[in-house]
Amino acid sequence: MDNNYAIILCGGSGTRLWPLSRSLKPKQFLSFTGEKTLYQETVERIAQKISLSHILTVTNHEHIFEVKGQLAEKYSKAIDGVIAEPLSRNTLPAIAIAVKRIFQVNPQALISVFPSDHFIKEPSAFIQAWNYAERAATEGYLTLFGIKPDHPATGYGYIFPNPSQDLSNLSGYLTVDAFFEKPNKALAEQYLNQGCLWNSGMFVFHAQVFMDLLLEYQPEIYSKIIEMSDPPTRIDYEDLESLSIDFGLTERVRKIAVVPVDMGWSDLGNWESIYQYQDKDKDNNCMRGEIVSVDSQDNLLWSDSGVISVLGVHHLAVIQSADVTMVCDRSKVEDVKTLVSKMQHKHPKLVETHLTVQRPWGSYTVLEERAHFKIKSILVKPHQRLSLQKHQFRSEHWIVVSGIASVTNENASFKVKANESTYIPANNKHRLANETEHDLIVIEVQTGTSVEESDIVRFEDIYGRDVSE
Amino acid sequence: MDNNYAIILCGGSGTRLWPLSRSLKPKQFLSFTGEKTLYQETVERIAQKISLSHILTVTNHEHIFEVKGQLAEKYSKAIDGVIAEPLSRNTLPAIAIAVKRIFQVNPQALISVFPSDHFIKEPSAFIQAWNYAERAATEGYLTLFGIKPDHPATGYGYIFPNPSQDLSNLSGYLTVDAFFEKPNKALAEQYLNQGCLWNSGMFVFHAQVFMDLLLEYQPEIYSKIIEMSDPPTRIDYEDLESLSIDFGLTERVRKIAVVPVDMGWSDLGNWESIYQYQDKDKDNNCMRGEIVSVDSQDNLLWSDSGVISVLGVHHLAVIQSADVTMVCDRSKVEDVKTLVSKMQHKHPKLVETHLTVQRPWGSYTVLEERAHFKIKSILVKPHQRLSLQKHQFRSEHWIVVSGIASVTNENASFKVKANESTYIPANNKHRLANETEHDLIVIEVQTGTSVEESDIVRFEDIYGRDVSE
Repeated sequence: MDNNYAIILCGGSGTRLWPLSRSLKPKQFLSFTGEKTLYQETVERIAQKISLSHILTVTNHEHIFEVKGQLAEKYSKAIDGVIAEPLSRNTLPAIAIAVKRIFQVNPQALISVFPSDHFIKEPSAFIQAWNYAERAATEGYLTLFGIKPDHPATGYGYIFPNPSQDLSNLSGYLTVDAFFEKPNKALAEQYLNQGCLWNSGMFVFHAQVFMDLLLEYQPEIYSKIIEMSDPPTRIDYEDLESLSIDFGLTERVRKIAVVPVDMGWSDLGNWESIYQYQDKDKDNNCMRGEIVSVDSQDNLLWSDSGVISVLGVHHLAVIQSADVTMVCDRSKVEDVKTLVSKMQHKHPKLVETHLTVQRPWGSYTVLEERAHFKIKSILVKPHQRLSLQKHQFRSEHWIVVSGIASVTNENASFKVKANESTYIPANNKHRLANETEHDLIVIEVQTGTSVEESDIVRFEDIYGRDVSE
Repeated sequence: MDNNYAIILCGGSGTRLWPLSRSLKPKQFLSFTGEKTLYQETVERIAQKISLSHILTVTNHEHIFEVKGQLAEKYSKAIDGVIAEPLSRNTLPAIAIAVKRIFQVNPQALISVFPSDHFIKEPSAFIQAWNYAERAATEGYLTLFGIKPDHPATGYGYIFPNPSQDLSNLSGYLTVDAFFEKPNKALAEQYLNQGCLWNSGMFVFHAQVFMDLLLEYQPEIYSKIIEMSDPPTRIDYEDLESLSIDFGLTERVRKIAVVPVDMGWSDLGNWESIYQYQDKDKDNNCMRGEIVSVDSQDNLLWSDSGVISVLGVHHLAVIQSADVTMVCDRSKVEDVKTLVSKMQHKHPKLVETHLTVQRPWGSYTVLEERAHFKIKSILVKPHQRLSLQKHQFRSEHWIVVSGIASVTNENASFKVKANESTYIPANNKHRLANETEHDLIVIEVQTGTSVEESDIVRFEDIYGRDVSE
């Protein structure tokens, strides 16, 4: 019997990598280090040891289609393991609902927990550490991965292993004496000299051990999780305490082990860490997208849309998406949160979402928006269909530029091929679908007294989204 | 009889204010200092003393519709005075063809010549200086406006007035002893101390005086200009010498006067001069468009499209248009030409044109372009019409979002109102027109094996553009 399981924590909604990360597109769903997103890289890394059907992903209900979409092609066997939390309650409840599901199927399970948005440069070091961590977990330890610090960071908690131990005699892990919260600079240097390790937020434990610890230290959360339906409802979550696993369990439990590891780890917590982990050119510039650089050194130049050109600038982070460009001194990246909160007031949409929005059936991109019209490019993936819907205030013109659209307009159903078009008057029930094996691309021109997304009545939806009647 | 005329030199095609200025949209057609473009501000300034029908504009044939479009609303009486040069031959031929046209109508004309792309902060000082210059010109002088230098600039030529003169006794003008070419820094400081003035490229002269001087110093150009048709043809221009008025006349002529003037003048020759002449906020940032700034000082932040956000940056110029963002240290703005020439190799379209392109009938904006489709937003001004045309490789879907389109499709002619659409198959002769008093906005979706602008056959055009048959 395969007792190995993994839980991926995919509920983060940070904007520290704004303007690329947005609240509806947090960093785990973006690609920084290659073609795959951080979440996909996490799945792939875990799949080296865990079968896809044993990988659970806990995410926020707002990101459920993004998660499933990212799993769809290569990792579809992990889709059944996706759990949507109706509200965010920090890491302990997220881990607990996933552990409970696993425990009910296999009480002998050995469970590894990983964030979805970390970067690991040396996968073989990671795998070796994981093997050690599993050994410790089998022996009943709540086991952590302790990153060997290379500088006195103030952004992480520190793990203090029992100093009497000799790593080589202990099968790769150490027992832990204490935890320290994120320190100031002076304390961080002291911890560094004492041989402390960074707490990376990765865990391995036995399912039974976790359930016992939860009952012992957080009995209220334990009983609520036990009584909860699976998947949990909003009512289940509403009066659940918001608590991190560090504060709720790790810092209280006595039988803790840590595996020290040096694997080129980063939580990619700001743009500076992106700069540090990317390749540079001869001018020490790190460049992504269309960049033209003259007489400029030590910059992070990152374009998702359009061209960035720089002349005579140094030590900047220039990050560009289709709707906004951020120019920031690299030493100030920690203050992006200040910029984001100012942006929240002036341009809230720029904090929430991109012009391209993922949907369960594909995606759309807003090309132009004015008072009385909006133009979208719509991509419908093979065998997907939008909901049966209508709009009160807008009509829609659809022009197929690639693929074949299956269109429902009131009682009529028909095909629209590339270079053909059709028209959906306001208040007509309609549906757009792709019944082929190939992508469908439709240009939609909306006209009317309102072209807001909220003007939609859904009658039927294959993805379980709310319908009105 | 009104003997006062003005010539506006509007042939510049520089890209020193790239990425806002492009070769097909040089800086005189852009707005930096208010709502009007530099060219429109020039017309307005001149119109204080010269009637619109006496203002001639000499421009390049590529910019003729831009010029006429900018004159259309408020300055339409100056449209007949627009002369298109078929080729660029520097300032002397440009001035000469305009002087010749004026001279043939009115040999008594007093002519003032102004660049189209300068900024003058104090119009009353300008008008007073102009009055003095006219007095000198009436007395037979080739008269210049000499800007009182406030620093030892190396980018201008210097005028050396006869030092024995007392300005107050001479009706506001001085006679000139010598000209100096653009100096190095040391020479510039010497000139500054000697009381030299910057040559601003503005002139006033009597038409007869100019014609006599041209005959005396440039007899070859004189005779070619005299024989030339009006407007000049490409053949007229092909073997014409390219020569500046400074080199061809000013530096040779003996009877020269200069009016010293301090009027907040700038030729807006680079982004730094834009920064210097704009209002700043409390952080000494100069901002245009949607800007969000945190902890940043002394920057020029200029967006024509999308949002620029800055954090912890200083002394930068950040200039953004829809397709490219430039980030440049303010001390390096003179090197924009280096960046532009690198850009010319990598992305030539970004040097040539904007996504929004002016046409005689209005403008269009490319919203999206892929291999087999292109989406444009098309604005047709009242009572304007595109050419009767066809395309070999692309079909066009037109959706009217505002106004009423008058459509010709092969032999059919019909109206398409807002929220209606029509379809033009490849190889159909068609025409789009606006016969109303209001703007017409059409979304055009092109599909086909090629969506290049060059795939067009024109059959009839009300703006005199080349037709094929």
